[in-house]
Amino acid sequence: MRMPEAPQTDEGWYALHDFRTVDWDAWREAPEHERERAIESGVDYLQAHESLADTDGETGGSAVFTVLGHKADLLILHLRPTTTQLDTAERRFERTPFARFTEQTSSYVSVTEVSGYMSQEYFEGETVEDSGMARYIRSRIEPEIPDAEHVCFYPMDKRRGEQDNWYDLPFEERADLMSNHGEIGREYAGKVTQIITGSIGFDDYEWGVTLFADDPTEIKHLLYEMRFDPSSSRYAEFGSFYFGRRFDPSDLDAVLAG
Amino acid sequence: MRMPEAPQTDEGWYALHDFRTVDWDAWREAPEHERERAIESGVDYLQAHESLADTDGETGGSAVFTVLGHKADLLILHLRPTTTQLDTAERRFERTPFARFTEQTSSYVSVTEVSGYMSQEYFEGETVEDSGMARYIRSRIEPEIPDAEHVCFYPMDKRRGEQDNWYDLPFEERADLMSNHGEIGREYAGKVTQIITGSIGFDDYEWGVTLFADDPTEIKHLLYEMRFDPSSSRYAEFGSFYFGRRFDPSDLDAVLAG
Amino acid sequence: MRMPEAPQTDEGWYALHDFRTVDWDAWREAPEHERERAIESGVDYLQAHESLADTDGETGGSAVFTVLGHKADLLILHLRPTTTQLDTAERRFERTPFARFTEQTSSYVSVTEVSGYMSQEYFEGETVEDSGMARYIRSRIEPEIPDAEHVCFYPMDKRRGEQDNWYDLPFEERADLMSNHGEIGREYAGKVTQIITGSIGFDDYEWGVTLFADDPTEIKHLLYEMRFDPSSSRYAEFGSFYFGRRFDPSDLDAVLAG
Amino acid sequence: MRMPEAPQTDEGWYALHDFRTVDWDAWREAPEHERERAIESGVDYLQAHESLADTDGETGGSAVFTVLGHKADLLILHLRPTTTQLDTAERRFERTPFARFTEQTSSYVSVTEVSGYMSQEYFEGETVEDSGMARYIRSRIEPEIPDAEHVCFYPMDKRRGEQDNWYDLPFEERADLMSNHGEIGREYAGKVTQIITGSIGFDDYEWGVTLFADDPTEIKHLLYEMRFDPSSSRYAEFGSFYFGRRFDPSDLDAVLAG
Amino acid sequence: MRMPEAPQTDEGWYALHDFRTVDWDAWREAPEHERERAIESGVDYLQAHESLADTDGETGGSAVFTVLGHKADLLILHLRPTTTQLDTAERRFERTPFARFTEQTSSYVSVTEVSGYMSQEYFEGETVEDSGMARYIRSRIEPEIPDAEHVCFYPMDKRRGEQDNWYDLPFEERADLMSNHGEIGREYAGKVTQIITGSIGFDDYEWGVTLFADDPTEIKHLLYEMRFDPSSSRYAEFGSFYFGRRFDPSDLDAVLAG
Repeated sequence: MRMPEAPQTDEGWYALHDFRTVDWDAWREAPEHERERAIESGVDYLQAHESLADTDGETGGSAVFTVLGHKADLLILHLRPTTTQLDTAERRFERTPFARFTEQTSSYVSVTEVSGYMSQEYFEGETVEDSGMARYIRSRIEPEIPDAEHVCFYPMDKRRGEQDNWYDLPFEERADLMSNHGEIGREYAGKVTQIITGSIGFDDYEWGVTLFADDPTEIKHLLYEMRFDPSSSRYAEFGSFYFGRRFDPSDLDAVLAG
Repeated sequence: MRMPEAPQTDEGWYALHDFRTVDWDAWREAPEHERERAIESGVDYLQAHESLADTDGETGGSAVFTVLGHKADLLILHLRPTTTQLDTAERRFERTPFARFTEQTSSYVSVTEVSGYMSQEYFEGETVEDSGMARYIRSRIEPEIPDAEHVCFYPMDKRRGEQDNWYDLPFEERADLMSNHGEIGREYAGKVTQIITGSIGFDDYEWGVTLFADDPTEIKHLLYEMRFDPSSSRYAEFGSFYFGRRFDPSDLDAVLAG
Repeated sequence: MRMPEAPQTDEGWYALHDFRTVDWDAWREAPEHERERAIESGVDYLQAHESLADTDGETGGSAVFTVLGHKADLLILHLRPTTTQLDTAERRFERTPFARFTEQTSSYVSVTEVSGYMSQEYFEGETVEDSGMARYIRSRIEPEIPDAEHVCFYPMDKRRGEQDNWYDLPFEERADLMSNHGEIGREYAGKVTQIITGSIGFDDYEWGVTLFADDPTEIKHLLYEMRFDPSSSRYAEFGSFYFGRRFDPSDLDAVLAG
Repeated sequence: MRMPEAPQTDEGWYALHDFRTVDWDAWREAPEHERERAIESGVDYLQAHESLADTDGETGGSAVFTVLGHKADLLILHLRPTTTQLDTAERRFERTPFARFTEQTSSYVSVTEVSGYMSQEYFEGETVEDSGMARYIRSRIEPEIPDAEHVCFYPMDKRRGEQDNWYDLPFEERADLMSNHGEIGREYAGKVTQIITGSIGFDDYEWGVTLFADDPTEIKHLLYEMRFDPSSSRYAEFGSFYFGRRFDPSDLDAVLAG
Repeated sequence: MRMPEAPQTDEGWYALHDFRTVDWDAWREAPEHERERAIESGVDYLQAHESLADTDGETGGSAVFTVLGHKADLLILHLRPTTTQLDTAERRFERTPFARFTEQTSSYVSVTEVSGYMSQEYFEGETVEDSGMARYIRSRIEPEIPDAEHVCFYPMDKRRGEQDNWYDLPFEERADLMSNHGEIGREYAGKVTQIITGSIGFDDYEWGVTLFADDPTEIKHLLYEMRFDPSSSRYAEFGSFYFGRRFDPSDLDAVLAG
């Protein structure tokens, strides 16, 4: 029996996309001093996590976004070297008085990933430390959260259809498809930045894609172009899309004020 | 590897379809003065947004509709040049005392779009400013919300089936299919008006379709005819349909009274 | 490109299937006088709508049913000449003290429909007014709600599969399939009565089917027989089924007492 | 056009599978006397229905089960000659103080059924009254609820796929498949007992299957063996599975105590 | 008609995966003494069940985990020789004051299983008691819960597609596929440990898979490699994935503190 070869992967930081709605009724009706206390605790939490005050080695990253539409009001994104840190970050939020005014309606658990489709030499152990390749790999699995206005998150699977089955394709064909796919991404260099995380065993889809851009239409153009690429057109299955705007933790009060 | 060509697109105003149910129990039991205050704040919000008092350049548009059935009671539609304005409009509503009597049960985030299927010359840069084509394109991406009694909204995808895969068709075939599709729409000129928005990267489907008509059966006839057109019969996947009736913000009190 | 011909349709009254659960905890615990006031308001609403006291021209129809199982406890069915009347009927219910004890958990928005598959001559304009055909058509689009004990409602689509695609069949083949399908229905004349409503553009499926019969097994036999008919076996996709029993508005108190 | 023949069916008692969760928070916090009153009313209701005190002709049957997992805590099963009796049984439960501590989270509405696949001679009218065949048929459509420890319920459809379409098979092929299927069941005689109910027109699936056994692994072995039978492997679509344990109404207190 | 042979199976302990969210609002606002009482009762329950104090024969096992993301906060896993014990364990939890601060949002009911694909000789009755094979089988159906930091749970079906239908394959082909699949698992011996449970008749999927590992990326690598194996790539359908971290019952207080 033929066994198509799984690509090697390397993982870096664990990621939690923590989506929350605001309980606007409670917020509207809370006395001023309670809202102030809530805001203060929320800002403290968000600033401590953005500045990695919760992390010994001061690695990882956090950011907060508003989310448009009914699926969520806020996205808090955490990247951390260990699952313990993620788990703690998620539960610590619940200790803040601000948490009372939010409900966690969705989330995504994953880990940054590079794969052997794109970086074969890296996995063949031929990468000299501190080389360009080594730095590139590190930038993918220990990524800085880009400082862009907009964010787009969606989870995805590769299709296992009865005709179009990604997991039945030979390695070379998959590598070619991924390479073409990557080329589209590179056309948007400087305009759209991505963080790719793997989630097999961690969440319901196989990957999470987080895109960052100042101009939202660049995200739309990139994804539309990719949709015609066979790697998406024939082999991708998408989950829900979340779209939001980054804000500085210190602006939490203004954000909630509308 | 063959790469089918993605059509170029141009985008205009961002759109938020904000669907809300009314908390009838709270409404029924609220004291008269609280209802009056709520109505006043709701009318103020809706009038300010319809008159674009929230917009510096006074561009965009807003409208409010009742929605039939259990999926929602109200649809507030906002079109604005920036995502910031949409984001603010959504959260500002929550500041009104009226918001207490509503719950946001669904929404759709998208942006007005024209594509190279229909307007190739426009994208080839041959459009003279202030020409008919330029005016037509602008009317599509900076549309006036039609002053019709009824509204119908639904999101849709193009199918990526294992046999019928829109994204695997050559550009010319897709352009032909879209052109035939457009002809059906033109038969309903003056009876049904549409706003087409793209939502790849912004929400769960690829497009949103918002139709306006005085006579609801014209919407039904148009969509039924289109369903036999191959561009729909073989390549469309539809989400939920919402159907409603426009009302003037000043009638909010009467609407809630039944 | 071949364009299969859409059948012509004619529409009559708009239909709202309004499904509600009873809040039994609130009902059980309400003081006797509150329950009396609620029942009185519920009976008034239902009687006024059954007698069309809400309709100027006194056309349309309303009826109320208990629903078995957890999906709903009550179905209120309204047929009215205008969407305004439906919209008002839905919201007016919320003004009654009885509404406090119910929650609208589901609904269906549609309009009575006849199509050119079955009544070609009617659509060719050859129908003499007051002829049998004209009276038949009117009985379909301005139907009396049958006075039977049981009701069954379900929404349905015609399949747009990659092999079995109703919307790709030639008109003649679809007309033949519909004609055979209708013959099964006619075998149940006098035992099962149907109201067919179209909902493209109005709700999530393409049609609503409402069946009425004294003997529930006749509904089961009819639908089982139809399921083997190619028009269903290969081309139908069904939504949820709701099954209930009609009651006279004046019995609302007894119904709630169990 | 070929019309595959629907099997004849005969129906007996109507069935309601009434699934309820317990509101454990309310239960834990209720004062002792309120819990006693609730238990008393629950036991009364369950005993009256098991003993058919609610039925004039004293036919039908009722039983109560705990359900494992989050989908429900209790299953109350009612079999009755008329829909009126089922409808009343469902609503009467809501009158008991015990009902306050439960929520109806799921249900299934169906009717016991025998079909012409298995009992052709019966439907050809050749069955002598009081013969073995007549007694067998009656035991299927007016079944005693078996006195076994465990219960398993699931709804199912026959597949209408584009290749594997049960409703397109000739009658003889379907009858053969059903006959082989029945043989597997007979191997488990004395170990697993089934009640087959039909639900076309009554609920979302076409049939309900209720299995009873003392040893749960016998249910698992039977269903696993059946899954390889073409009638299941190619033609069955299953809904949710519920698994529980029968208890005597007088043990309701002990059950709730854990 | 060909009847593919079902593999024999042997079952051991029944399993309940009990997923719960924490009601953080209630927890945050509860007075200190109430939280202490809740923690004490939670620790008592968890310790009693881990030490099998609830089990006469002191067989089975229990463990508790935090769960990352919104799907749950806690997973309590119980393995017990009888369904009665599982049923009681589930309901006894509800008696604890700690239960008030949790909600059961998901669960899975299954039983440990070995099948004839892997252990043919065992099922042919040739296994000498106390032999290596007998001990291996026992370790699979009466498994010790591994003492690893991380857990991953997901339910799965074997596909019954119109082309790729596991249940239509000959026994030998299925046994070969399972054997290759098992080989991948063995490569991860010492790194990832699994408990396989069957759930046909007990829950919505056919199997539950519970994986244990200290390093989460080993789970990811194992499942990614398996996904390319035909037994998964062509024949597996997965449900939701839950990922968590084990903790000692005595740390419940610290876990809730964040």
